[in-house]
Amino acid sequence: MMDAGGDSILLSELSDTGILRLTLNDSARRNALSEKMLSAIQSTFDAAADDAAVRVIVLASNGPAFCAGHDLKELTAGRAAADAGKAYFATIMTQCSTMMQTIVRHPKPVIAEIRGIATAAGCQLVASCDLAYAADDAGFSTPGVHIGLFCSTPMVALSRNVAPKHAMEMLLTGDMTSAARAAEIGLLNAAVAEDELTETVTAVATRIASKSSMTLKTGKRAFYQQAEMSLSDAYDYAAGIMVDNMLKRDAEEGVNAFLEKRHAVWIDE
Amino acid sequence: MMDAGGDSILLSELSDTGILRLTLNDSARRNALSEKMLSAIQSTFDAAADDAAVRVIVLASNGPAFCAGHDLKELTAGRAAADAGKAYFATIMTQCSTMMQTIVRHPKPVIAEIRGIATAAGCQLVASCDLAYAADDAGFSTPGVHIGLFCSTPMVALSRNVAPKHAMEMLLTGDMTSAARAAEIGLLNAAVAEDELTETVTAVATRIASKSSMTLKTGKRAFYQQAEMSLSDAYDYAAGIMVDNMLKRDAEEGVNAFLEKRHAVWIDE
Amino acid sequence: MMDAGGDSILLSELSDTGILRLTLNDSARRNALSEKMLSAIQSTFDAAADDAAVRVIVLASNGPAFCAGHDLKELTAGRAAADAGKAYFATIMTQCSTMMQTIVRHPKPVIAEIRGIATAAGCQLVASCDLAYAADDAGFSTPGVHIGLFCSTPMVALSRNVAPKHAMEMLLTGDMTSAARAAEIGLLNAAVAEDELTETVTAVATRIASKSSMTLKTGKRAFYQQAEMSLSDAYDYAAGIMVDNMLKRDAEEGVNAFLEKRHAVWIDE
Repeated sequence: MMDAGGDSILLSELSDTGILRLTLNDSARRNALSEKMLSAIQSTFDAAADDAAVRVIVLASNGPAFCAGHDLKELTAGRAAADAGKAYFATIMTQCSTMMQTIVRHPKPVIAEIRGIATAAGCQLVASCDLAYAADDAGFSTPGVHIGLFCSTPMVALSRNVAPKHAMEMLLTGDMTSAARAAEIGLLNAAVAEDELTETVTAVATRIASKSSMTLKTGKRAFYQQAEMSLSDAYDYAAGIMVDNMLKRDAEEGVNAFLEKRHAVWIDE
Repeated sequence: MMDAGGDSILLSELSDTGILRLTLNDSARRNALSEKMLSAIQSTFDAAADDAAVRVIVLASNGPAFCAGHDLKELTAGRAAADAGKAYFATIMTQCSTMMQTIVRHPKPVIAEIRGIATAAGCQLVASCDLAYAADDAGFSTPGVHIGLFCSTPMVALSRNVAPKHAMEMLLTGDMTSAARAAEIGLLNAAVAEDELTETVTAVATRIASKSSMTLKTGKRAFYQQAEMSLSDAYDYAAGIMVDNMLKRDAEEGVNAFLEKRHAVWIDE
Repeated sequence: MMDAGGDSILLSELSDTGILRLTLNDSARRNALSEKMLSAIQSTFDAAADDAAVRVIVLASNGPAFCAGHDLKELTAGRAAADAGKAYFATIMTQCSTMMQTIVRHPKPVIAEIRGIATAAGCQLVASCDLAYAADDAGFSTPGVHIGLFCSTPMVALSRNVAPKHAMEMLLTGDMTSAARAAEIGLLNAAVAEDELTETVTAVATRIASKSSMTLKTGKRAFYQQAEMSLSDAYDYAAGIMVDNMLKRDAEEGVNAFLEKRHAVWIDE
């Protein structure tokens, strides 16, 4: 897990506190979600899902862009096929949507640490993470409308983060949204000074990594599941989750430690 | 209705303007949602549903905590059963979820008046009320993650009040959210100075209590019903509600009074 | 399209940049949604849907009110019927809900430009537009509760724009919300100085009008469709939309123009 198969476009570093720090590292292509980048992210997240040493994942970047979205040159090359690219585009869009949903469904919390611009599917990547913190000079946009290609997949994630009029403003104008504004509308948890960003994210990640992995996995999964249910179905579902959670060893340990005013010791089960 | 069956853990006072002020009064247990407290709240809300003298309900507290969530000692004692507490936990979680949904489905508007901390199911209680105002030194958290027991039922209510990244930050970190921040993210209507809190809430409650109870009941019920529908279903449903509402005596009186520039006199039908 | 059939209660002006500026012009009735006004808006939007010269629609107003909601005198006159108005109310509510959904489903982006008050169905009209900008002395309310007639259809749109506690505060109290507050809670994109409002809206509309109409139509439709789906269904749907969009001429032109660092020339297909 120290490096994604030696693939230098996605750097990978695991701290002894259980924080897997992934760094998008294709600065020349503004960390575009090329086939290669999509595969690297997918395989790294897949491997991390079952790796007990990974407790929290941070997604960061090298270079001036956090992520510029799809690789337009690669997509355009696909037009040379007999079907004008239809099958290729479907493959890429499915691959990308699968990767985004892998983050949402991942058993470990995922935190975006954004420097530079996050545009189109790059903005979607931010919206798909559980938490997101950005440098205050970062920028966010869904600029597909400028090039005739509406950011329809990015809006799935964006519209589940921010209010409709805020999402529509970004989607219809393609304008850049500042980090401060992105924090106001709910796309970010906070915008902080660039030189404090990694420290801020690492502090949040460290606090989360100190919790029981069983508890985090249970809760994150339940969060996105219940969000799609009616209120009564969500309560029936969540009450069942609470009962199962109470019967887990770490809940017994955690509650006992709290009542005995001592620190809990997790076994992550 | 002047007191919940003499049960001093929940004080009850009905004003002549129709405001039922309930006060969580188990300061020693930080107003925890013990079996006794859950029962007291449930029976008081059930009785108030059909009591024409009650027009609006305010939920307040005595002591340093608004409500600290479930009673962990009571839950832990349940582990002594042959099934390690499974049946007991299910009973408590169902009882609590039923109480929360009773507030949402209650025919009278419910306003939370928060002093001190509202944590775990206490935070859920705030999120479940129609409106919420807090003292500016109040605090809100879903700290189950600290004790191995993710706040899965609280998140049902929380995630229907605030944006996903804000909910996830509270749920994954367990950190305390200030009243000012809670107001920013939509968990509160407003944070006000502690010594103006009761006055603020009473003023809002008094204005609402002056409306037709028929109208409030119709609207509150429709609000939560339509929220779970598609846009076209919601419009079909709400248009039907409007027609029925127009045919009610208080709508005829209210519209006529408006057109005649006089005060309406409600009969709540 | 220069005027809605000579009907002076809805002025209509099409710029050479493709901005259709509609002005509610029944100042004496505070631009109420009378039968006549509902019909004028409906027929104008219907005609604009297939008019290639219309790229963006701006909805503005003359007089002290943007729109005061239903025409209460007209509604009250309906009570004289044998059924006490039931059939008439149903007709009006359906007509109004259809008009609101016509805006949401319209292929062209719709921007509200609000001066004065927008109340009841007038507030719903603002909430139903894709974007909304208001003069900073504008005001918003859902005051039906004052007259015994809860704003149940307005809340369908309102509750899809703002957080539940913010919607409930407006609905239960009927209080006026300032433009600044409306912007904070997501009902508006921004509140600006009155003498800069038209300029601000025109600038946004002009930028949007410069995009491919095919792209705007594709994206707006997909936005509201996917909003009602589960995450995985939304991704399946949006990925399909992206593939279709990629195969359109304007996407090929737009992407090529971007890669070739030139301006795209749209044919809106």
